[in-house]
Amino acid sequence: MSVTAAKGFTAAGIAAGIKDGGKPDLALVVNTGPRRAAAGVFTSNRVKAAPVLWSQQVLADGELTAVVLNSGGANACTGPQGFQDTHATAEKVAEVLETGAGEVAVASTGLIGVTLPMDRLLPGIEKAAAELSGYGGEKAAIAIKTTDTVHKTAVAARDGWTVGGMAKGAGMLAPGLATMLVVLTTDADLDAAVLDRALRDATRVTFDRVDSDGCMSTNDTVLLLASGASGTAPEYADFAAAVREVCDDLGRQLIGDAEGASKDIKVEVINAATEEDAVEVGRSIARNNLLKCALHGEDPNWGRVLSAIGTTSAAFEPDALNVAINGVWVCKGGSIGDDRDLVDMRYREVRITADLAAGSATATIWTNDLTADYVHENSAYSS
Amino acid sequence: MSVTAAKGFTAAGIAAGIKDGGKPDLALVVNTGPRRAAAGVFTSNRVKAAPVLWSQQVLADGELTAVVLNSGGANACTGPQGFQDTHATAEKVAEVLETGAGEVAVASTGLIGVTLPMDRLLPGIEKAAAELSGYGGEKAAIAIKTTDTVHKTAVAARDGWTVGGMAKGAGMLAPGLATMLVVLTTDADLDAAVLDRALRDATRVTFDRVDSDGCMSTNDTVLLLASGASGTAPEYADFAAAVREVCDDLGRQLIGDAEGASKDIKVEVINAATEEDAVEVGRSIARNNLLKCALHGEDPNWGRVLSAIGTTSAAFEPDALNVAINGVWVCKGGSIGDDRDLVDMRYREVRITADLAAGSATATIWTNDLTADYVHENSAYSS
Repeated sequence: MSVTAAKGFTAAGIAAGIKDGGKPDLALVVNTGPRRAAAGVFTSNRVKAAPVLWSQQVLADGELTAVVLNSGGANACTGPQGFQDTHATAEKVAEVLETGAGEVAVASTGLIGVTLPMDRLLPGIEKAAAELSGYGGEKAAIAIKTTDTVHKTAVAARDGWTVGGMAKGAGMLAPGLATMLVVLTTDADLDAAVLDRALRDATRVTFDRVDSDGCMSTNDTVLLLASGASGTAPEYADFAAAVREVCDDLGRQLIGDAEGASKDIKVEVINAATEEDAVEVGRSIARNNLLKCALHGEDPNWGRVLSAIGTTSAAFEPDALNVAINGVWVCKGGSIGDDRDLVDMRYREVRITADLAAGSATATIWTNDLTADYVHENSAYSS
Repeated sequence: MSVTAAKGFTAAGIAAGIKDGGKPDLALVVNTGPRRAAAGVFTSNRVKAAPVLWSQQVLADGELTAVVLNSGGANACTGPQGFQDTHATAEKVAEVLETGAGEVAVASTGLIGVTLPMDRLLPGIEKAAAELSGYGGEKAAIAIKTTDTVHKTAVAARDGWTVGGMAKGAGMLAPGLATMLVVLTTDADLDAAVLDRALRDATRVTFDRVDSDGCMSTNDTVLLLASGASGTAPEYADFAAAVREVCDDLGRQLIGDAEGASKDIKVEVINAATEEDAVEVGRSIARNNLLKCALHGEDPNWGRVLSAIGTTSAAFEPDALNVAINGVWVCKGGSIGDDRDLVDMRYREVRITADLAAGSATATIWTNDLTADYVHENSAYSS
């Protein structure tokens, strides 16, 4: 599974000593070819970590041989030293793999504003390279965890070719809670332009619609590497569907493991004038702290849904809005609808349906509730 | 103090039985003249409660004789019935005061999506009218509390004239946490146009820059009534300064009493290209849940400040940003600055200074931390 599900990839995950306590903290993913096409999407935060700036640069030619990822430090807001450290990391990987640094993407996650312990990271790369194997995908997925309670992998196997991947984090591409790092691999025989299109089409409706806490990371990175090792070049639609399936699966796993969450919340916006309106409304609902607290308390507080919709610029008439929680239309025509006591909130998944009565566009945003555990986890993170 | 500090006003606060347990829940403020000029600003939420729609309408002529306010129910998202209830409330006040309903503003706060118990509210108005007095300001301030732990009043006394007021809520005008209701009164002899200008000038830099949890209410209302009873017409600048002083004082009290908060956080943005940029950056910092959790944990996590700045469209260069927490410049040039261990976070007030190095505009936004108590309070609110 994971990044080694597709043919033409090896991976490893080891403990380099970046994190305290001997926990795995360094992952290496290598494309053994024959093809080395690649695409990436990155955080839209204007404050970008050194590894993001680096990886954007090396991806310009649509080729990657390897990705090195570390947890235990984001290497963000670390100035020229941080960029030098990222560069040195890529150089070291290039040296042990006998390739060029321009073929190596770097991703980091952890605390912002702290430089990486290069005296431990660089020897770690040699150790990881020595452990590379076609079965190393799971170890790699484990090594990139930060506050994740489980490692996250997914695979879409098709006739003759495969897309697989791993993810860490509890959030989204833009914006994101903590950092989201994703590496996807495929043995399909496709060029970088096709990978780029499929990756953007997929992230737009998956990771971009996962909104755990509205906070955007400096480090979010999603990479897709193709080895061509299957010798098969699938149709675009089939390939795009497989990439989307893996992204969707990983995105749901991210929300399911969001920091402190006790509810997975699916916000469906229907009958919007445009898809942009639907996304804006869905995001506004998904980011409303008061609503997220209410859902944590299993309180079907639809007034907070309406109040969130009212802050958007989407097309709607306030007295035409309908809202259902877990299928019960508790708000009809902008006013009191069916009995809120009919709403069963005992299960982890909560479904909010917002009907804008303004058209036929829809969008779904996934989020989670706001809990005391989230506060505890994030108030003690760096101490 | 409160709304009866200025001459020409009476007020009362009583328990009408809207709330359970006999708590005060109905306030009446009456302008006894000779002048009855008034101005108001209201929530920018497009889903507006019935009393907001009503009060905007009656204020169109710049005159008000009375304001009736209830806690225990927001009368928002209650459809035509809700508007009829607001109308009936104003009619009842008009009847007991022998004026017209078009002279009566109505404000409500409490749970959204529940109709008001008119059989208790209307008799409550008669009871409140019987208790009106020139010393009733404090009782009125107490009667509009919802989750407020203290009632909030302020006064600016000048030579021969006065501005006073009361507030409830723990948030801001737009957006706002829970509902903010504010009634300001003055005995200055000024017309509605001057009141309107002074009120807008003041709220723009006070209530509009208090951002507790980024959530915007359906009911936020700020009213300013002038009786002219002092016989004095102050200069605009003097009057505007007094209104701003009272708004600033009440705004700080709202943040100081924000739900579950343990820190009052002053976000100062300096050296911005424009005031709009400074406000956008300040608001983005003030709304970052991860940062608000970190500050709760007394962790000077400046990386989360930079990450929030990076999501804005303000003019800045990432490697020119400087951030101080409680006066210690922990981030310099977008990278690691002075030792974060020098930051003393033991006190309730926290000061974050974000230097955009892009101009000379400034803005200050007040917010508070995100705590487990906030989650508890808001997950159990309606149950």
